[in-house]
Amino acid sequence: MVSEDFKAMLGGKSVIRVLAEYATARGAEIGYENVFDYSLGNPSVPAPKEFTDAMIRLLTEEDPMTLHGYSQSQGIPAVRQKHADYLNKRFNMNYTAEHLFMTTGAAGAIAHAARAATKPGDEVITIAPFFPEYVQYINRTGAVLKIVPADTKTFQIDFNELENAFNEKTAAVLINTPNNPSGAMYTEETLKTLADMMRSMQSKYGHDIFLISDEPYREIVFDGKTAPYPAHFYDNTLTCYSYSKSLSVPGERIGYVAVNPKATDADIISVMCGQISRGIGHNCPPSIIQLAVSEVLGVTSDLSVYETNMNLLYDELTSLGFEVTRPGGTFYIMPKALEKDSIAFCNKAKDHDLILVPADNFGAPGFFRMAYCIDTEKVERSLETIRSFVKECY
Amino acid sequence: MVSEDFKAMLGGKSVIRVLAEYATARGAEIGYENVFDYSLGNPSVPAPKEFTDAMIRLLTEEDPMTLHGYSQSQGIPAVRQKHADYLNKRFNMNYTAEHLFMTTGAAGAIAHAARAATKPGDEVITIAPFFPEYVQYINRTGAVLKIVPADTKTFQIDFNELENAFNEKTAAVLINTPNNPSGAMYTEETLKTLADMMRSMQSKYGHDIFLISDEPYREIVFDGKTAPYPAHFYDNTLTCYSYSKSLSVPGERIGYVAVNPKATDADIISVMCGQISRGIGHNCPPSIIQLAVSEVLGVTSDLSVYETNMNLLYDELTSLGFEVTRPGGTFYIMPKALEKDSIAFCNKAKDHDLILVPADNFGAPGFFRMAYCIDTEKVERSLETIRSFVKECY
Repeated sequence: MVSEDFKAMLGGKSVIRVLAEYATARGAEIGYENVFDYSLGNPSVPAPKEFTDAMIRLLTEEDPMTLHGYSQSQGIPAVRQKHADYLNKRFNMNYTAEHLFMTTGAAGAIAHAARAATKPGDEVITIAPFFPEYVQYINRTGAVLKIVPADTKTFQIDFNELENAFNEKTAAVLINTPNNPSGAMYTEETLKTLADMMRSMQSKYGHDIFLISDEPYREIVFDGKTAPYPAHFYDNTLTCYSYSKSLSVPGERIGYVAVNPKATDADIISVMCGQISRGIGHNCPPSIIQLAVSEVLGVTSDLSVYETNMNLLYDELTSLGFEVTRPGGTFYIMPKALEKDSIAFCNKAKDHDLILVPADNFGAPGFFRMAYCIDTEKVERSLETIRSFVKECY
Repeated sequence: MVSEDFKAMLGGKSVIRVLAEYATARGAEIGYENVFDYSLGNPSVPAPKEFTDAMIRLLTEEDPMTLHGYSQSQGIPAVRQKHADYLNKRFNMNYTAEHLFMTTGAAGAIAHAARAATKPGDEVITIAPFFPEYVQYINRTGAVLKIVPADTKTFQIDFNELENAFNEKTAAVLINTPNNPSGAMYTEETLKTLADMMRSMQSKYGHDIFLISDEPYREIVFDGKTAPYPAHFYDNTLTCYSYSKSLSVPGERIGYVAVNPKATDADIISVMCGQISRGIGHNCPPSIIQLAVSEVLGVTSDLSVYETNMNLLYDELTSLGFEVTRPGGTFYIMPKALEKDSIAFCNKAKDHDLILVPADNFGAPGFFRMAYCIDTEKVERSLETIRSFVKECY
């Protein structure tokens, strides 16, 4: 018989997906340009020319046997070395190739990091608001995801709530900064306080507690700032990265785990990840994509549109009276709805062809998420719709 | 603390990998051309020009947003439709796009098929000789791999042994034809008998028993024959395919699960696989590789070298008195060693710079595997070494 466990999941479609499908269907009726679709977190700018050029050069100049050959399960050694060199220079770290593990995007990275850092029955703490897929990412390892309520004023960490969440089963804390869905970027102070608390909990419970730091939005940061690098603050950090957003290649499934050289067992965690791969069908990310990203380290798509869009929306939303934390990065913003029930609020917006996602599933009931990875021209046109929606309904 | 479970696996290096590393090191000493390395099952012919051309065309002509965008977790709909059409035409099946699930190679395919067809505690039967990674592929799902001893005369299935292996916990049978490591191709008669037995066991135990058919060597078949298609014989078949061998792109991680339209729950298994992906970090195989393979369906590398090599080795080995079953396909051959202890036998061969892999880990103690995916010129030169090794040692 087919697995009842996975069969039971078939009903559970993601709210985001349902709304995106509605937007597409509605677009077919009235023209997609007339639907203000803020549902999906899909990059809206093309991959940089450097990436395409690297791919074409590999295909035309490299020996196809080497180019398309098996990579080591940890990743192609030269690719890992280049990543170590790049991260060391950029973040003043001391990675060697042995600390890198190449993955199929951030999903692959977290799948390995979580299995390396936990055993079945352990708890992994994450902090709301959070990416809803974390529930699957963690619970399917045999560990249990424990959610700390959001500090809804700043979307930094509520450390009173966090402190209460630790117990002897805590094996890891999973953070995401800059954050999907809130757009908040954890400050140095937040990361320092987090590290202090985690060190104290390691002492209290007498075992390692790993920080799994999910950083796909690291390059999308506003106001000329840069994102603090969490591994700087805490030794037991497993940094999970994806090129999906920075290079606009979400379909190509490429990222990595970088193990802080100061972490416990730092020299073997990447090798362990290679063993973990054997049981989950991962093996290695595609060779040509590994090689291509390693040739464009530090290059990104033109990401400036996201800041332009954020400012347009933030200014409009605040002037309309929304309670909203100004994003520090990403392509998301998460205002408070104008009524308690954010699902009802988003349904009313839908009647105005304004597609907003209630943030209940992100652990922030009463809020909604807008993914502004769309053309600026469309954001500008949407402002009038937002105004008339608010005026009519509230 | 890092996972003791995966940490414990670190010692367990694959015998094949150890021998391949020895061959490389020895090659550095005496010249790799002087090491007759039959250890690794890595394609020795380049990817076809059609594949490279398809990749370059996609990169130069397609909109990068679409090209590198997220695929559905089941795979890009047009790619799945093309696969269904191709398989229907070639194998006279009735697949629709809904029966296809695109994966990162056969490892990804089996990771999903096994989870779809079993629950923790179930048993999955495989038939020796078998690919040693099956132990990890199956046992890490929570099910248990049960190994049926080999019919060492023909390397077809020993049906007496197989019959004894079934019980009420049997959820699936995992086969690999043409077979790594034996090179045997299951005959129509073998597949028919297998299907009859599985149907009878389904009746006896009152539940579905799935056939997970791992077919990466489907296109490497000798003597002008074609491989019988297991799904033809048994409704509850999940066909797992990889392009690694047929297109010589093992590093690019691309394959699929094709669900027999006559299987129980045929219409939902691919969707279930999409749910399974969420917990193991799979998401989808790389978009550009999905698109490229879908443009070259039916194309293969020039695979003729494998048959040439097989004939050279088979003739030499039989004339030297080895007991050996003539392969029907793949790039492997598995003769009986000239002494009971095949590890001792392979060690002696190693002293002649002849790298053979003892088949104990493949479930065929007393045999050894040769992977003849190397240049024919080297196979020819190796024959004299094989002769002198046998003459000196036996």
